[in-house]
Amino acid sequence: MDLRELIDLLPAGTVLTDPDVLAGYRQDWAKDPAAGTPLAVVRATGTADVCTTLRWADEHRVPVVPRGAGSGLSGGATAVDGGIVLSTERMRGIAIDPVTRTAVVGPGLLNAEVKRAVAEHGLWYPPDPSSFEMCSIGGNAATNAGGLCCVKYGVTTDYVLGMEVVLADGTAVRLGGPRLKDSAGLSLTKMFVGSEGTLGVITELTLRLLPAQPAQSTVVASFATLTAATEAILAVTGALRPAMLEFMDSVAINAVEDELRMGLDRDAAALLVARSDAPGDHAAQEARIMLEACRAAGATEAFHTADPEEGEAFTAARRYAIPAVERLGPLLLEDVGVPLPRLGDLVTGIAEIAERNDVTVSVIAHAGDGNTHPLIVHDPADPDETERAHRAFGEIMALAIALGGTITGEHGVGRLKKAWLPDQLGPEVMDLTRRIKTALDPHGILNPGAVL
Amino acid sequence: MDLRELIDLLPAGTVLTDPDVLAGYRQDWAKDPAAGTPLAVVRATGTADVCTTLRWADEHRVPVVPRGAGSGLSGGATAVDGGIVLSTERMRGIAIDPVTRTAVVGPGLLNAEVKRAVAEHGLWYPPDPSSFEMCSIGGNAATNAGGLCCVKYGVTTDYVLGMEVVLADGTAVRLGGPRLKDSAGLSLTKMFVGSEGTLGVITELTLRLLPAQPAQSTVVASFATLTAATEAILAVTGALRPAMLEFMDSVAINAVEDELRMGLDRDAAALLVARSDAPGDHAAQEARIMLEACRAAGATEAFHTADPEEGEAFTAARRYAIPAVERLGPLLLEDVGVPLPRLGDLVTGIAEIAERNDVTVSVIAHAGDGNTHPLIVHDPADPDETERAHRAFGEIMALAIALGGTITGEHGVGRLKKAWLPDQLGPEVMDLTRRIKTALDPHGILNPGAVL
Repeated sequence: MDLRELIDLLPAGTVLTDPDVLAGYRQDWAKDPAAGTPLAVVRATGTADVCTTLRWADEHRVPVVPRGAGSGLSGGATAVDGGIVLSTERMRGIAIDPVTRTAVVGPGLLNAEVKRAVAEHGLWYPPDPSSFEMCSIGGNAATNAGGLCCVKYGVTTDYVLGMEVVLADGTAVRLGGPRLKDSAGLSLTKMFVGSEGTLGVITELTLRLLPAQPAQSTVVASFATLTAATEAILAVTGALRPAMLEFMDSVAINAVEDELRMGLDRDAAALLVARSDAPGDHAAQEARIMLEACRAAGATEAFHTADPEEGEAFTAARRYAIPAVERLGPLLLEDVGVPLPRLGDLVTGIAEIAERNDVTVSVIAHAGDGNTHPLIVHDPADPDETERAHRAFGEIMALAIALGGTITGEHGVGRLKKAWLPDQLGPEVMDLTRRIKTALDPHGILNPGAVL
Repeated sequence: MDLRELIDLLPAGTVLTDPDVLAGYRQDWAKDPAAGTPLAVVRATGTADVCTTLRWADEHRVPVVPRGAGSGLSGGATAVDGGIVLSTERMRGIAIDPVTRTAVVGPGLLNAEVKRAVAEHGLWYPPDPSSFEMCSIGGNAATNAGGLCCVKYGVTTDYVLGMEVVLADGTAVRLGGPRLKDSAGLSLTKMFVGSEGTLGVITELTLRLLPAQPAQSTVVASFATLTAATEAILAVTGALRPAMLEFMDSVAINAVEDELRMGLDRDAAALLVARSDAPGDHAAQEARIMLEACRAAGATEAFHTADPEEGEAFTAARRYAIPAVERLGPLLLEDVGVPLPRLGDLVTGIAEIAERNDVTVSVIAHAGDGNTHPLIVHDPADPDETERAHRAFGEIMALAIALGGTITGEHGVGRLKKAWLPDQLGPEVMDLTRRIKTALDPHGILNPGAVL
């Protein structure tokens, strides 16, 4: 494919073809071994560049893999041979309107940058993937990303009021806007959220913001058994809506304690970290209710603190679990979710899968919303162990589906999970998905191989 | 069209053809004068009946107009000549899970019935159209209905976690489920919410519920000018997130006072009713902040009350505004919304449109989210006045679009507003909408003439 036409159509320096540069854009954090080598990376400076690139690609039938910060964990931004990687990392504008509590943001801003910018106006953008310091807001919208606060505050789609998105043929359209209510036409904004770059490339987002989150009270509780912990989770969520309710198993507790030395109970089977952000005294009241629920479920140790720094330290410990467990070896990172009453079945079932396949699986979870991240430790240099790890990876998804759950709560399907998507959705929904994909991207240039 | 095959395929008594019965299903509350006479009304008893009806209709190319409670205000359920009206009014199952705070409901349940059933479990389904005692939950989902609480709690789509929907060819599919997080595949659930029966017929909904709403404090404030009132609205929403922030203009105040005799200030240009549901004492604190904001904006009279009955009386007065104004004459009911900072321009612009066209327009509004219901009073027996009323109807939508708003915040486009939809969305988004419609309903049998 002759790139000269595309290079001439775009601003100087936008199209990168240096092999060393291309190598850095072949994979996202999923480190998909099947990644190809792209023809070029286009680092768009604005919507016009995205339009130009897609118009050219559609005409020449060149695959385009949209890419945010490259922090995806399902291979949604895995490059394909002969394709273009279209990066939105340079599209970083932001305009905040404190009156309507909305922000118009470029997709290349990091989640943390959005949070910080709006915080200067006393506002809060809730969705908080653990990777918030390195994931882009555009990628968050493309995967319908979640995080720790979702149990009370919902996921990315709940905060996207509008967008500009460029369709496969290079047409830019505006959907929605800074309005809490809009019933005019199909809910297209919501359809593009979570579409993982298969229907269009998001070039701008209009986000709904909340007033700054009140100070939080935090509860930390250890349990001698997984069952006691999952019973405590149901007791907590049955009593109130926590602002956060996180879970770490024994492997994660010990991996974190190895690194952070903060006195976590190394003998515990599970640790819960729960928070309340109810206004004023109500946070402490809710913390006490959660504390009692944990004790009634058999917590071996439990305490609460209204000290923001202490609470944040335990939250940070939970966020640190993935890198800590990664010290034990490379991870296959799962993202399955189940309806909350099935969480106990999921967690005990995962332990059985780990044992049967003779692999270490550490489970951490956004427990309050039933979304778990089983971390499958394996040595890629050991083919047998790698095979067992991948078998466990598939069995965990099958288990989640059997429990009425989902193969991905917040990371997206990408390329790593697409083989299991039909098992969850069924042939009719797959067909429906394909019909929409074909209607919007008839030449199949947008992120081919992802999701479908 | 020979109905015998359909009658034989469905349970006895499901297909109604009595002309008197058909007459009652020709129109919804929009009273579309262009309504046709259907071949038959199918009152489905369950999903299987919906599948059978659509399979038959798709094969024979018979138009199907889905219908909930018939309380729609945009003509989304206007019958078409030679078509089937497919009513879900008999599909009224409900199963509530207090642990996951979800309910699985049949589309034929009224919004109020859902609210009451979940309240028995200490739970709350927030969306609250003013018609909540007579509108169906299926229709709420089909129009992405809103209400008074949306300023804080969002709209119907924010509470729909999953659904069963029957596609044009009669295939039933399940989308989403009782999970707060799910990134598996396209966000199809959200796409069907607000699709006004043009893409499928919703046969079951999985709803997210909240804990029961805390007791509310209420602020009532009168203003001598529209501008003072809209300034107060911005001051209130700038200071906090009210649980409700409603507006009535002078015509509405007097119409309500004529009926209810509750001592509303008949000389006021506008009345605001605002509520806080912050926990415990915080509701009264927030009420005081709102009271001060109203006074600072020049309220002529303002007070707050923590008495639930008194607060509810003023909320009921606001809800009663539409029937009260209707006593002045038949209404053309508008539903335009704008970004909140443009609300003042919208309200004053509507007054100019009313004067220019010599018609009475009463404005009531879910002011906190920028969604207004200008009520255009006119006498259908007077062709000249009717023409002026319809001209004002169109001019108000054009004004909303010019102010960056929407032609419909919560009622849907239906048939009454579709002529203005392209002005809001533009040709590219209309084309995108048509491509999705064609992909999902290739023979165009589902609610033809609505939206598109």
